Amino acid sequence: MANWETIAGDLATPLGFRAAAVAAGIKKTRDALDLAMIFSDSPATTAAGLFTTNRVAAAPVLLSRRNLVECRGRCRAIVVNSGNANACTGKEGMNAAEETARVAAELLEIEPSQVLVASTGVIGVPLNADLILKQLPHLKERLSQENAKSVVNAIMTTDTVPKSCVVRSEARGKAVHIAGIAKGAGMIHPRMATMLSFITTDAVMGARMLQNLLIGVVGDSFNRVSVDGDTSTNDTVVALASGLSETNVIPGNDSRTWFMEGLTLVCQTLARMIARDGEGASKLVTVEVVGARTPLDAERVARAIANSPLVKTALTGADPNWGRIICAAGYSGAKFDPNKVDVSVNNMPLCRKGVDAGFDEAAAHRELDRKEILLQVDLHAGSGAARMWTCNFTRDYIDINASYRS
Amino acid sequence: MANWETIAGDLATPLGFRAAAVAAGIKKTRDALDLAMIFSDSPATTAAGLFTTNRVAAAPVLLSRRNLVECRGRCRAIVVNSGNANACTGKEGMNAAEETARVAAELLEIEPSQVLVASTGVIGVPLNADLILKQLPHLKERLSQENAKSVVNAIMTTDTVPKSCVVRSEARGKAVHIAGIAKGAGMIHPRMATMLSFITTDAVMGARMLQNLLIGVVGDSFNRVSVDGDTSTNDTVVALASGLSETNVIPGNDSRTWFMEGLTLVCQTLARMIARDGEGASKLVTVEVVGARTPLDAERVARAIANSPLVKTALTGADPNWGRIICAAGYSGAKFDPNKVDVSVNNMPLCRKGVDAGFDEAAAHRELDRKEILLQVDLHAGSGAARMWTCNFTRDYIDINASYRS
Repeated sequence: MANWETIAGDLATPLGFRAAAVAAGIKKTRDALDLAMIFSDSPATTAAGLFTTNRVAAAPVLLSRRNLVECRGRCRAIVVNSGNANACTGKEGMNAAEETARVAAELLEIEPSQVLVASTGVIGVPLNADLILKQLPHLKERLSQENAKSVVNAIMTTDTVPKSCVVRSEARGKAVHIAGIAKGAGMIHPRMATMLSFITTDAVMGARMLQNLLIGVVGDSFNRVSVDGDTSTNDTVVALASGLSETNVIPGNDSRTWFMEGLTLVCQTLARMIARDGEGASKLVTVEVVGARTPLDAERVARAIANSPLVKTALTGADPNWGRIICAAGYSGAKFDPNKVDVSVNNMPLCRKGVDAGFDEAAAHRELDRKEILLQVDLHAGSGAARMWTCNFTRDYIDINASYRS
Repeated sequence: MANWETIAGDLATPLGFRAAAVAAGIKKTRDALDLAMIFSDSPATTAAGLFTTNRVAAAPVLLSRRNLVECRGRCRAIVVNSGNANACTGKEGMNAAEETARVAAELLEIEPSQVLVASTGVIGVPLNADLILKQLPHLKERLSQENAKSVVNAIMTTDTVPKSCVVRSEARGKAVHIAGIAKGAGMIHPRMATMLSFITTDAVMGARMLQNLLIGVVGDSFNRVSVDGDTSTNDTVVALASGLSETNVIPGNDSRTWFMEGLTLVCQTLARMIARDGEGASKLVTVEVVGARTPLDAERVARAIANSPLVKTALTGADPNWGRIICAAGYSGAKFDPNKVDVSVNNMPLCRKGVDAGFDEAAAHRELDRKEILLQVDLHAGSGAARMWTCNFTRDYIDINASYRS
């Protein structure tokens, strides 16, 4: 089996997928794409999904979670809208999601439980279901490989760039593809998954296998992104496998590791794109913690640093304020000796054994002025390690969120 | 015993206290007050203290914690500097704190363990102990009731207003006073106490009694403030009781409840002042959660809302975005039924039973445009209640913290 390589493409690059997007008038901006349909032609398609852990879950999350179980991982279609989260919308919100799945299923000649529904946008505003329902026949007609390109734009809200990643590899002379798209810029602090991501592949695998792989990979990609510490009500990651590449992915086999590498590449690429495009952000920040007592302690420290407004504003000013980094580690709940901690930025030591490393101020400032920043913490307490992706905090974050709803 | 009333005054309003402040050159701004001494003349003085729970604790915190135990609550002096936190400064930082206590004790003719030391300011920069040591004789000479006024200014860093509160009551014809000062604007998310606060009283009570009262009151005042979710390395609350009012506060007695009311008034007033003066803040926000399954669940929800950058930026835009409030409740870890939740602002319902309450948009905007905002959440899951004080998040928070150190 070959290595995975990144290629140009979209959700329809893997064999068997078609998609389309339209402007349904859900977003306030006229003619903005805000509704999309993704469809897998193969009846053998398997599906996996991970959803928000927020106790307040949106109607489409509740429905999709149920549908995935009901059809035993045999979902073949996704209908997704932006501009309205359909969260905290009561019984009418659930009716809107259910009607969407029912009508789409009828058009696509599959069971309603084979349709997954996802929404993103403002919370607590009733969703006008008619806007979606009247577009479904049109969307179904437009389903094509060509039209799949625009889907990534239709799921954007405060995102400033579309986020997609397609990879390709070969097994026994046959090409296999994995494609992923994602949206997410604010309300990003996934305990499970982050905002919306849809993944297609033409590999052959059972639904349970796909679900297990997805759980593993999401834990090390989307779950490691934090923009603002807020876990959304709508987080959804869905993967569909058409099986048309004739390449099997089998448990306990090399093929599993190989496919997982490809899926990890796609999900980590999308996760980094989300962090980089954090609301108002100008820098992609990777927090790397090593030498923790346990992997959980490492994660605690990485999360505390990635979520600290003080660390993230210091990065905006390119200020080598390592005191705020070690302070965040200190309140994270992890156990370590403050007198042993090292802190570096882009491999340049700022703090050694808990005190100033005597670094060159101008050089440190230059490192922090880059577009990509690596913050490294070594606790010297064990061998636990963890990584998080985040971004800096700017005035623009405030401006974007002071007026998002109005 | 009479009710407590707020009066004009300072740390020397309670009988037996003298204090002074000087510009020692620790702050960068020329002639800015940055060093203070507080002293209790009475040998019968008792002391209590609460310190940060951050694993990375500053040298003065480590020393004061130790001194308080060593002198069995018989501390009589506090030396405090601003402009440098003396945190993450290694052995030299500890030497600086110890030398400060030793020299101050010699001048004041008390034991070194009777001196508490506190620092606030930037983390990780070596503290020049000489700047403090050479001012101590001068400070000692200047100790007076008159000079106590300026101490509140000497402990400020990014604070925009000095914070103090003095209350007075009478018991059996004798006046009793409690005075408190505090500083704190950023790195405020106390799990124990918030930044620096010093309290003096002329009530008579044992050190253990004072410590127990302080623990109880701080839990319901300073521990309920959050500005940015960052727990400082230097949080310190210290109370000194001179005993000169001849009014005894005795366990299991009415006097205990009475004194606790006064102490609560002082600490909650200071706590609200800290929230209102949060870095860059323009609004004081009280988060009130009722109907939780347990008091702990109520606290979880209140904390999640008070810490959510999305809620706090919406408040800046006076945007009645209750979806972000219920979303924060949802990820707080508390158990409740999202379909039963009510959310109000200043008693105006925004959300009823988990959905839009059909409120008047303009009226809600007007409520959120006030300088003081009450966010109310009823989970309808039990009788647990909790309160937090916080502030809105503005561009100025970003600007202040992007350049605090440099």
